[in-house]
Amino acid sequence: MEMKEKLQKLEKKLSAQPINFESFFSKKAMEIKASEVRELLKLVETSDVISLAGGLPAPETFPVETIKKIAVEILEKHADKALQYGTTKGFTPLRLALARWMEKRYGIPISKVEIMTVAGSQQALDLIGRVFIDPGDIIVVEAPTYLAAIQAFKYYDPQFISIPMDDDGMRVDILEEKLEELRRQGKRVKIVYTVSTFQNPMGVTMSVERRKRLIELASEYDFLIVEDGPYSELRYSGKPVPPIKHFDHEGRVIYLGTFSKILAPGFRVGWVAAHPHLIRKMEIAKQSIDLCTNTFGQTIAWKYVEEGHLDEHIPKIIEFYKPRRDAMLEALEEYMPDGIRWTKPEGGMFVWVTLPEGIDTKLMLEKAVSKGVAYVPGEAFFVHRDVKNTMRLNFTYVPEDKIREGVKRLAETVEEELKKL
Amino acid sequence: MEMKEKLQKLEKKLSAQPINFESFFSKKAMEIKASEVRELLKLVETSDVISLAGGLPAPETFPVETIKKIAVEILEKHADKALQYGTTKGFTPLRLALARWMEKRYGIPISKVEIMTVAGSQQALDLIGRVFIDPGDIIVVEAPTYLAAIQAFKYYDPQFISIPMDDDGMRVDILEEKLEELRRQGKRVKIVYTVSTFQNPMGVTMSVERRKRLIELASEYDFLIVEDGPYSELRYSGKPVPPIKHFDHEGRVIYLGTFSKILAPGFRVGWVAAHPHLIRKMEIAKQSIDLCTNTFGQTIAWKYVEEGHLDEHIPKIIEFYKPRRDAMLEALEEYMPDGIRWTKPEGGMFVWVTLPEGIDTKLMLEKAVSKGVAYVPGEAFFVHRDVKNTMRLNFTYVPEDKIREGVKRLAETVEEELKKL
Repeated sequence: MEMKEKLQKLEKKLSAQPINFESFFSKKAMEIKASEVRELLKLVETSDVISLAGGLPAPETFPVETIKKIAVEILEKHADKALQYGTTKGFTPLRLALARWMEKRYGIPISKVEIMTVAGSQQALDLIGRVFIDPGDIIVVEAPTYLAAIQAFKYYDPQFISIPMDDDGMRVDILEEKLEELRRQGKRVKIVYTVSTFQNPMGVTMSVERRKRLIELASEYDFLIVEDGPYSELRYSGKPVPPIKHFDHEGRVIYLGTFSKILAPGFRVGWVAAHPHLIRKMEIAKQSIDLCTNTFGQTIAWKYVEEGHLDEHIPKIIEFYKPRRDAMLEALEEYMPDGIRWTKPEGGMFVWVTLPEGIDTKLMLEKAVSKGVAYVPGEAFFVHRDVKNTMRLNFTYVPEDKIREGVKRLAETVEEELKKL
Repeated sequence: MEMKEKLQKLEKKLSAQPINFESFFSKKAMEIKASEVRELLKLVETSDVISLAGGLPAPETFPVETIKKIAVEILEKHADKALQYGTTKGFTPLRLALARWMEKRYGIPISKVEIMTVAGSQQALDLIGRVFIDPGDIIVVEAPTYLAAIQAFKYYDPQFISIPMDDDGMRVDILEEKLEELRRQGKRVKIVYTVSTFQNPMGVTMSVERRKRLIELASEYDFLIVEDGPYSELRYSGKPVPPIKHFDHEGRVIYLGTFSKILAPGFRVGWVAAHPHLIRKMEIAKQSIDLCTNTFGQTIAWKYVEEGHLDEHIPKIIEFYKPRRDAMLEALEEYMPDGIRWTKPEGGMFVWVTLPEGIDTKLMLEKAVSKGVAYVPGEAFFVHRDVKNTMRLNFTYVPEDKIREGVKRLAETVEEELKKL
């Protein structure tokens, strides 16, 4: 376009009648707002601040050479399929490979009709909201729970009930009391959502006993369990625990898996493993949402699982993250003042820190950033936003020395706050 | 897992109490059903039937060598970004490249803040529903219109008004009458949705005069236009027409673009070009839906546009499809009995056939399949499903000789139906 014409167009644009855009938004769109914390943290990402806030895997863990080999092979041999539209349910060879892998890895006999691929497990959360939640339906979540699960479900207007956590995960005994109480009121829980292993944000893992009890309760009180398992392969110490899905003989568990932490997030490929009846409904719902998950990413994931690269690569990721987890726990021990508690995760990506009551970590964030460290204030991980004195720290993205320095700066910030109490 | 253990588990699964899955589905999930036609056509895809039903690009048009070159380069130089989570708004270099490309190609001065990438333009349709449609809002669509746009919007419970089409696209004069009538009733149209160029399913293009009038009406009656442009680059004859967005000086047009027909559908990368205020809201809505569009596909698309491959490749796609379009129009001329009408598209992927009233193409489909040809019955492209005697034929996927043979078989089927009238 010529300069003059372009200028005229831009001028016309600027002088145009301002439109009342607000009048076009749906009521729900008016409700959703950008989070201030997210906006603040966005700024941090580009500065010198040590950010323990993110939830990103370290790019050093991406198996780039393997991906390159696979990508070239796919394009040479399977381009017609890998570059074409796929079925909504997902690329069949990948679904088959995932079924085999879950069976081998988790002891879950499963077939491909029980598997659908999705654009990352985040899409599965939205789909679950769409397929299962009517306004007012009771959904149980952990307190705290995965932030973006709250956002995804919230759109569908459920009534949230949150169950406290301890070092063994969700307090299933408290859940049971709650279920009994609701039953007396003639109410029913539809879904219990749990990040069962190395939870986001706490890093803790639900014990085997609680897993077994939870599945019994699901049967007794007739609810479904959504088990979100993004971190379950990232174990740095302790004994593996089978997924809740392993104990599920009725088809009550909807298991969500993802390649984001065991291959790379950039492909946006995850999967849902559930009873075929539930998969079918989610499949139909997905049709109008995006037709299908990106096929190219699915074919990469297929070869990655099928040819054994996944099993080979997991130990390398673990080897890479373990020192970072250790560095964070050691630094917390070394620098944090008395009266501060934190979880000791055996895996995953996060440590959860609890400060004395009276300290508001959201208010404290600005000061921490000015001291050169960032974290995620815990408030947003609680559906009722009623806990102010917690924070989530990530240990996968930043190298050990920075983790130590970041925790040191954080400890200083906390100490200053403590003095004010 | 050992055979015995596996058998036990499977037995346990089979003997489990059957769950009343229906009791878990949301009301909306109960409403959405798989389409019978889709199911029938699924079967056809694997048989010897010549399918003119699909909407797939020909895999021969995928620039596989270029993609391979780009993929290797990306993995060697940009793996840390290409394999990582990205921002919800999209990969910035791609957004910038698209802004430049739209400016050059369509004469639209545009900046990257007006562009968001999406998981194919289908996701944009769902997002538009989420961000703009409250139950009962009036949405204008063409009659017929893109099937999956109906599905995407329908979830949000709008009131659809459909405006007839002719060879110059939407009858904007009839739209105007309708707008006036609604205004008298104190009602307002929120969105007019149009596939403006080489429409799906009709193949026709909205004339320049109508485009200009439509944008005037948008300003006069205060509505937004969603312009869906997936086929606009595929012109085999006639003179190019600028997008409606070209005439938009107020920010009323939300333009949807996609790489599915000019690169490959398998990446699921599309984009939205709209006023920053609208983009911002769609961005926030997308956060809980899938966090971000697959980054790897976005980086491929970026290099594809940025390095000029796109502009170089479009003429090759056109050269490949033109003979197929010609073969279909010639075969229709040669074989179809009198009284049958069809569109003469200057581009795109589809021809629209209208049979005499009294023939129901949905009922006729089984016979056609038994004669070895398939098509999509037109009914589902009308929001009110009130037109029974039309069908959509695709000419991009099947080679010329098969197109001719397919049309011949279809003509025979039609002739038999005509005799029954």
